[in-house]
Amino acid sequence: MTTGDDDRFLRAAIDLARENVACGGQPFGAVVVKDGAIIATGVNEIIATHDPTAHAELGAIRAASRKLGSADLSGCTVYASGHPCPMCMAAMRMAGVAGVSFAYTNEEAEPFGLSTAAIYADLARPFDAQSMIIRHLPMDGAAEPGVYADWWRTRH
Amino acid sequence: MTTGDDDRFLRAAIDLARENVACGGQPFGAVVVKDGAIIATGVNEIIATHDPTAHAELGAIRAASRKLGSADLSGCTVYASGHPCPMCMAAMRMAGVAGVSFAYTNEEAEPFGLSTAAIYADLARPFDAQSMIIRHLPMDGAAEPGVYADWWRTRH
Repeated sequence: MTTGDDDRFLRAAIDLARENVACGGQPFGAVVVKDGAIIATGVNEIIATHDPTAHAELGAIRAASRKLGSADLSGCTVYASGHPCPMCMAAMRMAGVAGVSFAYTNEEAEPFGLSTAAIYADLARPFDAQSMIIRHLPMDGAAEPGVYADWWRTRH
Repeated sequence: MTTGDDDRFLRAAIDLARENVACGGQPFGAVVVKDGAIIATGVNEIIATHDPTAHAELGAIRAASRKLGSADLSGCTVYASGHPCPMCMAAMRMAGVAGVSFAYTNEEAEPFGLSTAAIYADLARPFDAQSMIIRHLPMDGAAEPGVYADWWRTRH
């Protein structure tokens, strides 16, 4: 991987963001790269689909998993036009993506209301200090035996 | 909202998890509740779809957004069988979900390899200390004018 590759893939992500703006979408694009080639792309489709999870990176890794027939994206890297949000960062991490590079920062996004820095800060707080109410409600063990143990038994 | 409602909705999420296990899926289910009624449900579909983002909560909020025709899930609450992962937590937070309740903890999930506690810990580290390589590669400003500003101009 050379600096030229980085530049090319990042530019592809930004071009997608720009095309998405031309189509009435939000300014975010992403590509998934494997073995030196783009295998999947995504753009932010929230406005078109009303799907709050339709971020560029999430769409790109979903497309990559369809392409590869696997939920395991080890050996893949992602190039995103902008700083990934915490949802996409976690999704990439859990899919085994090796690395992600982005061009535009949250600082650059802030004046346009596109930064997720405040979301990062909120989610970094202890559960009981976050803006979304998060509750652990244990079930009665006698009435509700562990579904995890049941699942385990189906596999062993 | 009474304790009885909590119990009913949480039990619905666990029933979905249990049904998903019976269908060969992973033991996770979730429901989205609005105005005292379940408006959408989701189960973990990773094994069936190879989609690494196909978690129960993510599926449930996507289904809720389709039902409501909106990416804004304000006024909705989520009941999940298990402790939500950071991807789903961020997705719910960004969709405006008021609160999430879950039954099974990461501690209970750990012996079965289903805990996301290590993912939470990894993502909480500074970017340069995480297992996924995260890089900010600024573009040349002259060659690449800001896509955010361009987007802004299309809307004002």
